[in-house]
Amino acid sequence: MSEPLPTTTRQITLASRPVGEPTPENFALVEVALPDLADDEILVRNTAMSVDPYMRGRMNDVKSYIPPFQLGEPLDGGAVGEVIASRAESLPVGTHVVHGLGWREHAVVGVRHAKPIDPALAPTTAHLGILGMPGLTAYAGLVGVAEMREGDVVFVSGAAGAVGSLAGQLARLMGASRVIGSAGSAEKVERLRTLGFDAAFNYRDRPVRESLREAAPDGIDVYFDNVGGDHLEAAISSMRQRGRIALCGAISAYNETEPVPGPSNLFQAIGKGLTLRGFIVMMYSHLRPEFEQRMAQWLAHDEIVWDETFRDGLESAPTAFIELLAGANTGKMIVRL
Amino acid sequence: MSEPLPTTTRQITLASRPVGEPTPENFALVEVALPDLADDEILVRNTAMSVDPYMRGRMNDVKSYIPPFQLGEPLDGGAVGEVIASRAESLPVGTHVVHGLGWREHAVVGVRHAKPIDPALAPTTAHLGILGMPGLTAYAGLVGVAEMREGDVVFVSGAAGAVGSLAGQLARLMGASRVIGSAGSAEKVERLRTLGFDAAFNYRDRPVRESLREAAPDGIDVYFDNVGGDHLEAAISSMRQRGRIALCGAISAYNETEPVPGPSNLFQAIGKGLTLRGFIVMMYSHLRPEFEQRMAQWLAHDEIVWDETFRDGLESAPTAFIELLAGANTGKMIVRL
Repeated sequence: MSEPLPTTTRQITLASRPVGEPTPENFALVEVALPDLADDEILVRNTAMSVDPYMRGRMNDVKSYIPPFQLGEPLDGGAVGEVIASRAESLPVGTHVVHGLGWREHAVVGVRHAKPIDPALAPTTAHLGILGMPGLTAYAGLVGVAEMREGDVVFVSGAAGAVGSLAGQLARLMGASRVIGSAGSAEKVERLRTLGFDAAFNYRDRPVRESLREAAPDGIDVYFDNVGGDHLEAAISSMRQRGRIALCGAISAYNETEPVPGPSNLFQAIGKGLTLRGFIVMMYSHLRPEFEQRMAQWLAHDEIVWDETFRDGLESAPTAFIELLAGANTGKMIVRL
Repeated sequence: MSEPLPTTTRQITLASRPVGEPTPENFALVEVALPDLADDEILVRNTAMSVDPYMRGRMNDVKSYIPPFQLGEPLDGGAVGEVIASRAESLPVGTHVVHGLGWREHAVVGVRHAKPIDPALAPTTAHLGILGMPGLTAYAGLVGVAEMREGDVVFVSGAAGAVGSLAGQLARLMGASRVIGSAGSAEKVERLRTLGFDAAFNYRDRPVRESLREAAPDGIDVYFDNVGGDHLEAAISSMRQRGRIALCGAISAYNETEPVPGPSNLFQAIGKGLTLRGFIVMMYSHLRPEFEQRMAQWLAHDEIVWDETFRDGLESAPTAFIELLAGANTGKMIVRL
């Protein structure tokens, strides 16, 4: 590489904790010195970073499955980039990698926390989406969590999002008899139809319960929940006997400042023998090999597509994240750096 | 049998649907003619009948896993008795049977709906409790629904009830590292201690969440839910990673006239990877053979005990049921006829 190595980088820090909906003032763009590389470290020039709904939870100061972001410290999350300096034999300069130190233009990464990727096989940003965490989330949610079976009627909420759009397509590929999706705009609903969803509705049009009853008059067997709230209540109401719900996310509640009541019809789980199971993707990393193998097949046969919504420049990352929570994206929201 | 065969019987009918807490006026005691026996039918003199919390749901006019009771028609439910007339070879006069036509002094029962029981092996009322539906419910909830494992910390709500008191004892027998129970009076809490619960608390004393945290400072792995409401919310909050909740009943809500909000902390199921699974005992009838075998062993070795609370006379059945919902029973509530 002929480019001179940078000695500083720009990164986004958490300036204050959001209360309710995040605002640009909750974030700060700062320039910091880059440390010298230690043994087994690489310097990565990030080319793209991910913003994901789960990050909202980490902005609150509460104990959860991952520690909260710290005030004044850089945020982090999925990113892809190119190695521009290396003290790790296995990841020489020029290697493309995916790693967990996004929200910055350059990252010093330990070799064990970076994974090489081949830009000839797929665009590198695919490793933040269909081939990355959202892809495995969709697969694990259907296969490992909801134990989807051939012939199931499957409902996916937030189905135009990164995880939802893959969950719906995977359900179809794995033999669902009917796949239903909800999304937050007419354009997204139209997109779901072209992705092969058998039915799709705009959840802003009228009560989810009504739309779902119409889209699945005989009920549903599997619900892949990205939204929570009204969606979860409607799904419980439409569930058939022994139905299974994968609780993946609850984006409807992420910006709420007060506890949100759970579904008032949860008691139906008793008579219907329903299973509700929560998960995060790390719990199903044992499914990664089969996921990668099957996904490679589907991609090779053009049986699955993925959407990306781009924003450009590190300074746009906070608004990209805010817009993501408001549903501005179709497919994976990615910030190119 | 030398007693003359009755031509009429007394039974309890549903006079009106309860709104909220049932009252005696919702029930009527009527005398009706007994029909002649058809082929494969038996006439049973009921000696005891069961009142169970699930019956409250059947008094509402809503579709559920079993049809609602009909106005002006007799109620039904578990009962034991003796065959006093028979047109079924397999169940001759003198046989003791358990069947589903309680709430009446005599019942005409189809042979396929009655099961012979041996009064020499156990008191016949045990077939309404530890050897019957409540026993299998407790076993199935732990083994089939919550997939309890040796070493689990198990919490049972309504633990002095028919199902709860067995669930707690079974958990201990199957290797739970700690068994915690809640009940609604100091006397019941004391009883739980003598039944071998490691910790027990009165849920009327202070918030369930506080009591549970104190009783299980390191959290719980399995929650056997008979109560719903605050209990379920507290349990979710105390759940360890990958914890499992068997949703068996929600007695706290049975008399509510408005929808009851679900647990406001249900989102914790995501990060903790929790499973909530509802069930009714009929879904697990395949476990009956192993249940009967293991229970016979435990009983033979005096490793499990059961409590019964008795009321006497058919006319006391409505108040027995009303008292059951208010928690007047320890163990199985039984009406002797």
